[in-house]
Amino acid sequence: MSDLLARLRDLIGPTHVLSGTDAAAYGREWTGHYHWTPLAVLRPATVAEVSAILRLAHETGTPVVPVGGNTGLNGGTYAEGALMLSLARLNRVREVNPTARTVVAEAGVVLEALHGIAAEHGLAFPLTYGAKGSAMVGGFLSTNAGGSNVIRYGSARALCLGVEVVLADGRVLNLLTQLHKDNTGYDLRDLIIGAEGTLGIITAAVLRLVPAPVAYGTALLGVESLGVALDLLNRVQAATGGAVEAFEYMPAHYMARLARLRPELACPFHPQPVNVLLEIATTRAGDDPSTLLEEVLGAALDAGQVAEAVIATSEAQRRKLWQMRESAAEITFTTPDLVDCDVAFPLDRLETFLHRMTARLATIDPGAEELVIAHLGDGNIHYTAYPTRTDPALNDTIRAAVAEEAVALGGTFSAEHGVGLSKRATMAAHKDPVALDVMRAIKVALDPKGILNPGKTIP
Amino acid sequence: MSDLLARLRDLIGPTHVLSGTDAAAYGREWTGHYHWTPLAVLRPATVAEVSAILRLAHETGTPVVPVGGNTGLNGGTYAEGALMLSLARLNRVREVNPTARTVVAEAGVVLEALHGIAAEHGLAFPLTYGAKGSAMVGGFLSTNAGGSNVIRYGSARALCLGVEVVLADGRVLNLLTQLHKDNTGYDLRDLIIGAEGTLGIITAAVLRLVPAPVAYGTALLGVESLGVALDLLNRVQAATGGAVEAFEYMPAHYMARLARLRPELACPFHPQPVNVLLEIATTRAGDDPSTLLEEVLGAALDAGQVAEAVIATSEAQRRKLWQMRESAAEITFTTPDLVDCDVAFPLDRLETFLHRMTARLATIDPGAEELVIAHLGDGNIHYTAYPTRTDPALNDTIRAAVAEEAVALGGTFSAEHGVGLSKRATMAAHKDPVALDVMRAIKVALDPKGILNPGKTIP
Ligand SMILES: Cc1cc2nc3c(=O)[nH]c(=O)nc-3n(C[C@H](O)[C@H](O)[C@H](O)COP(=O)(O)OP(=O)(O)OC[C@H]3O[C@@H](n4cnc5c(N)ncnc54)[C@H](O)[C@@H]3O)c2cc1C
Ligand SMILES: Cc1cc2nc3c(=O)[nH]c(=O)nc-3n(C[C@H](O)[C@H](O)[C@H](O)COP(=O)(O)OP(=O)(O)OC[C@H]3O[C@@H](n4cnc5c(N)ncnc54)[C@H](O)[C@@H]3O)c2cc1C
Repeated sequence: MSDLLARLRDLIGPTHVLSGTDAAAYGREWTGHYHWTPLAVLRPATVAEVSAILRLAHETGTPVVPVGGNTGLNGGTYAEGALMLSLARLNRVREVNPTARTVVAEAGVVLEALHGIAAEHGLAFPLTYGAKGSAMVGGFLSTNAGGSNVIRYGSARALCLGVEVVLADGRVLNLLTQLHKDNTGYDLRDLIIGAEGTLGIITAAVLRLVPAPVAYGTALLGVESLGVALDLLNRVQAATGGAVEAFEYMPAHYMARLARLRPELACPFHPQPVNVLLEIATTRAGDDPSTLLEEVLGAALDAGQVAEAVIATSEAQRRKLWQMRESAAEITFTTPDLVDCDVAFPLDRLETFLHRMTARLATIDPGAEELVIAHLGDGNIHYTAYPTRTDPALNDTIRAAVAEEAVALGGTFSAEHGVGLSKRATMAAHKDPVALDVMRAIKVALDPKGILNPGKTIP
Repeated sequence: MSDLLARLRDLIGPTHVLSGTDAAAYGREWTGHYHWTPLAVLRPATVAEVSAILRLAHETGTPVVPVGGNTGLNGGTYAEGALMLSLARLNRVREVNPTARTVVAEAGVVLEALHGIAAEHGLAFPLTYGAKGSAMVGGFLSTNAGGSNVIRYGSARALCLGVEVVLADGRVLNLLTQLHKDNTGYDLRDLIIGAEGTLGIITAAVLRLVPAPVAYGTALLGVESLGVALDLLNRVQAATGGAVEAFEYMPAHYMARLARLRPELACPFHPQPVNVLLEIATTRAGDDPSTLLEEVLGAALDAGQVAEAVIATSEAQRRKLWQMRESAAEITFTTPDLVDCDVAFPLDRLETFLHRMTARLATIDPGAEELVIAHLGDGNIHYTAYPTRTDPALNDTIRAAVAEEAVALGGTFSAEHGVGLSKRATMAAHKDPVALDVMRAIKVALDPKGILNPGKTIP
């Protein structure tokens, strides 16, 4: 073992092989749900170094767990006794092509840095969510992350044209196309995206940039029900020709929690049962989305459909409305004793799910609390339960109940956070068994020794 | 062998197992490039029948070639001595959900029928191209077809949420999700899409519908160069907030050929070096795209940028402009003695490619003619050469030259038509060798006996 570490030090330099207490800092998930002791933490700086590490790991049958910003929420970076491969030093932006609207970024580039690079060229990289200051290219692609702008721009996968990947045995798979159309064989790119580090290490990617909006219209609304909110969404989409960038749901209990934990971000009006952060945007000079929003919302207020509405009149106000939403993870993960779920549905089934879950939770653990926050326009709910006692079996029961209700309504038990460790049992219970077999066959074909992020994703 | 046919007749009924002259009708590609004699043609009507066929084929090691509308352009349905599995009778529309904007269609549903179904609900299925009257769901997904609206809506893959697939051994893989966000394991859907029938038989799919445009602005323009045309594209995109649905290039030599072969579709003005079919559309009631187009083009005419322009003032005129474009395949494939290529580039390299190819073709076969037609907005060119003599080796030389020039300019040798048989040699020459190895490993994992469309896609 110490022989292995010595060889690794030779490969990438001694200062970039962390062990002992230096490595221990990496042994914790953001949520606090998982803790582990890695064998060592490796911080290579080049693709060649990543490749050399993998060759050695393959030769010696040593497990390797890739890590980016370590902001994942499903135990995906759990690495007890494994080598943790940090991509943080592979953080070069290899190329920006404003004409083609692409950027070639290495795996360790931080999401927020991409936002900045795009903005410098009058463009945008539209993936965004609370962890943007830490999450990295390799991590958001490996989890196929979503966030708040999916309704308009799609998830991480939709924003990626090509990837560069180091395979389990160290070979480099070059799929770095900059083209929007390329039908030369199997879609290996999309297989790697969302594979949570179990099929290969992403070292770089070609990402799509989009025209930066020239103006936004941002509002916080209070309405009485999800049905009314969704009706309003359709209305705004029709009136703007599909310009909705975000449609985020914060129920009254979310607002209450926010007011308690982040008083400076308290709801500017008396919270309604359904509160929605709505943003529209235009890339067309001369368009005035705020005025358009005023018109549509004005009509809805007059019709009694909307009870409360605030439209941001400055960028500072807009940022503040966004902080209410982006604080979600922070105000959710206040204790490791919670059950966080990430389900999605056809839009017309959301309300039924929430009613059923409230009733069901009350029978499983009377007194348990719920916290709901949703990418409503995508039908994607982050449902969190706070049980009344610390009891892993109880947590499992709640998690299984959520998945069961989700699947029964034609939904999914993992919308955007992926499977990792925490949803392996749910995968076993609900994923098509033939799909699981096919996943296993592909895993064995690409990683015959099972060294890449072992125990994750596939039950 | 006759024993096999007898067992197949038992499985799906004798009238649906065609052999002899009945089967011979299936033994030809639309292009005339490939001819073959299938062992038999099978026409199952249900997923269970497809599954039973595959179980038997797997047991007996019999090759199976799926076929939809047989409009593919790369020899993908070549089936010498193989069972051809026609999906034409699996043509039920299982479900239309106008609220969720999805349709669940079986593999044998014809593309144009989907257009009709969407229209009935005030929606659109935006994939479209000349073969729409014959191409089927299973075929357009297996080739990840593109067509004229990719610039706005993406290729077939972007329009598909889920698939149902019969695997090589007859097992049914159910990935029929209706959700836009679903991160439960590997992206097997996108692996199957574009796999040209080599990894499984698609039996059904969940397809996305989009709001139907309420008004179009359609024009035919003549300008002097590709550079001017692309500049205009950017101008129109900016002015309309990205409302361009099609931007199709027809050079003067294309117009000449059209005038000769389809005189009723001759260019309404003196053809310029670069002629473009431009269409914009809006889903927002009250918008007037024709007037917007008039303004933008009027300014460009005044500035001398646009030499000629015709804006359609009726649906009949619009249809006629489209027929000029949609006749491309028909006026291209007038002889089997041609070399048809389907390349794509970053937009700024198109002109260089065309110049280089013209020069290079003149050295390879002086006197050979060229025909170019392009989905210009996607950087996708259909480049066809008509050699001066019938000589397969000459054709191979030209094909190799086109691929070489494409790859040298950062382009691809197959943008939307796929690999099939005709581009296997090009795959061997230009595809990343590691990618080829990974494709082979996946193929073996999913189809260990190699019975699914053998010899296609992977060199
Ligand atoms: C405050 C907060 C808000 C969030 N909001 C959202 C949200 O709205 N939507 C959403 O989808 N997610 C959200 N997330 C979770 C999201 O999955 C992660 O933030 C992010 O996508 C992961 O990036 P990362 O670099 O931190 O990856 P990590 O956590 O380091 O890794 C995530 C997974 O990917 C693997 N991995 C990492 N790098 C690579 C690589 N280079 N190659 C191969 N595998 C790799 C890891 O092994 C692990 O399995 C949120 C998280 C936090 C903490
Ligand atoms: C006039 C004309 C215009 C065209 N224009 C375009 C264009 O603009 N853009 C473009 O991308 N293409 C275009 N094409 C080619 C295009 O690839 C096909 O038209 C279409 O996508 C294939 O559909 P099909 O049902 O005819 O498939 P087929 O030709 O029957 O099959 C195509 C391939 O898919 C496989 N396959 C078929 N069905 C299944 C199934 N159910 N499961 C698994 N595999 C299956 C076959 O084995 C074969 O390899 C054009 C073709 C023609 C003739």
